[in-house]
Amino acid sequence: MAKFVTIGERIHCISPVIREAMATFNPDPILKRAKQQLDAGATYLDVNIGPAESNGEELMMWAVKLLQENFDNVPLSLDTVNTKAIEAGISVYNRSKGKPIVNSADARDRIENIDLAAANDAIIIALCSKDGVPSDNDERMAYCQEMLERGMSLGMDPEDMWFDPLFLVIKGMQDKQVEMLEALKMLSDMGLKTTGGLSNVSNGMPKNIRPIMDSAMVAMSMAYGLTSAIVNPCDLRLMETIKSCDIILNNNLYADSYLEL
Amino acid sequence: MAKFVTIGERIHCISPVIREAMATFNPDPILKRAKQQLDAGATYLDVNIGPAESNGEELMMWAVKLLQENFDNVPLSLDTVNTKAIEAGISVYNRSKGKPIVNSADARDRIENIDLAAANDAIIIALCSKDGVPSDNDERMAYCQEMLERGMSLGMDPEDMWFDPLFLVIKGMQDKQVEMLEALKMLSDMGLKTTGGLSNVSNGMPKNIRPIMDSAMVAMSMAYGLTSAIVNPCDLRLMETIKSCDIILNNNLYADSYLEL
Repeated sequence: MAKFVTIGERIHCISPVIREAMATFNPDPILKRAKQQLDAGATYLDVNIGPAESNGEELMMWAVKLLQENFDNVPLSLDTVNTKAIEAGISVYNRSKGKPIVNSADARDRIENIDLAAANDAIIIALCSKDGVPSDNDERMAYCQEMLERGMSLGMDPEDMWFDPLFLVIKGMQDKQVEMLEALKMLSDMGLKTTGGLSNVSNGMPKNIRPIMDSAMVAMSMAYGLTSAIVNPCDLRLMETIKSCDIILNNNLYADSYLEL
Repeated sequence: MAKFVTIGERIHCISPVIREAMATFNPDPILKRAKQQLDAGATYLDVNIGPAESNGEELMMWAVKLLQENFDNVPLSLDTVNTKAIEAGISVYNRSKGKPIVNSADARDRIENIDLAAANDAIIIALCSKDGVPSDNDERMAYCQEMLERGMSLGMDPEDMWFDPLFLVIKGMQDKQVEMLEALKMLSDMGLKTTGGLSNVSNGMPKNIRPIMDSAMVAMSMAYGLTSAIVNPCDLRLMETIKSCDIILNNNLYADSYLEL
């Protein structure tokens, strides 16, 4: 079994510091956040530039080159609704440490991002969603099937399709959590890889509770087969939990020093 | 769904302080440990008096009365290989807060403890074991079936049989952990209740790692249906994890204050 893949979420234009850095092409704040996340053990870094309608291509190319040149070709997840910006980013992307991730497709308007990933030998994050939150797992699995068939018909390896069952906020959808876990199990039983925005579960909870809840959820999700997540790798408790679950699942050999590795 | 049941493990004659208190019938150290565990959120308290060959009956009756009189009839798990001591303990046990637990039966020499539990309307912890560690889940489930049939033939409600799949030490049996989790799933799918000595998984690990590993394991185990465990309730991280998993599983309604409740 492969080790769990963490995708660091902290280079995101929703952060005022990062938005400002992207607006002015200032490398320092971006490099700082990248280093923090990599030091904390992130595998991939997500680069969310927002819609970036005016200069998305230029901005994504700049960010990809900046991060890969400074961090030994760190693998990246390219995160924007601007597909031209994703293509531009891939055009300058170095694959030596891993394929680029296209973040993301769904079963509706963004389904063509599967075609984009297929055409560019990239990994696609495929949201099991069409119109917002799927009403049940029949819907989730129907969307999964639809996207899987599209990707495979275009020659994609299913290994390169990471399905996101949609982590749901507990405050408001507490009774939907077990069903989401069961979706992970179904996807995992099909041999598929999975990912998702884990911290969504603790949205709106007090700040001190979020790492506790996120850690409980990642462990339960890994028990049900989750192979990756988009997370804040600077959340120490979360990373400790992920590393411990990788030991329990025998994805990584135990050593007394496993938390430091 | 019912909330997870924690059985506090810290009144155990392996502790020098407790052994001394049991030898001299000194209530203070026992009451102190009981209070710590109940304050930390334990549901049941385990009372392990060891074999206590000379005075087991007297000792267990004393301990049961001591704890129940001081802590509002706290429910107890009576833990000894001395069956006469367990019977004596039950004879003075007040059931107003829950049935006594007999800890424990197995599928070999201790199978008669099932009869004891049946005769006394007690809960039995039933180890899925005959000669040490079961070699696979076929064995585990065969022992489970054997004990389940014995209990049911004696009129026990399966709800009162808590099956212990045997948590195994990671240092030495790392590759057996997933199978143990799968056993939990099988037991849970049969509608059975489960428990076990959770901290065995982190046996031999550095002290600072044990709460981290135990927390990861309890969350994965709860995902697979574990309904109870014998734990150190004074391990804050562990209790936070259990409470969070109870929220995710919808066993308890979310409130921002759920960790304090």
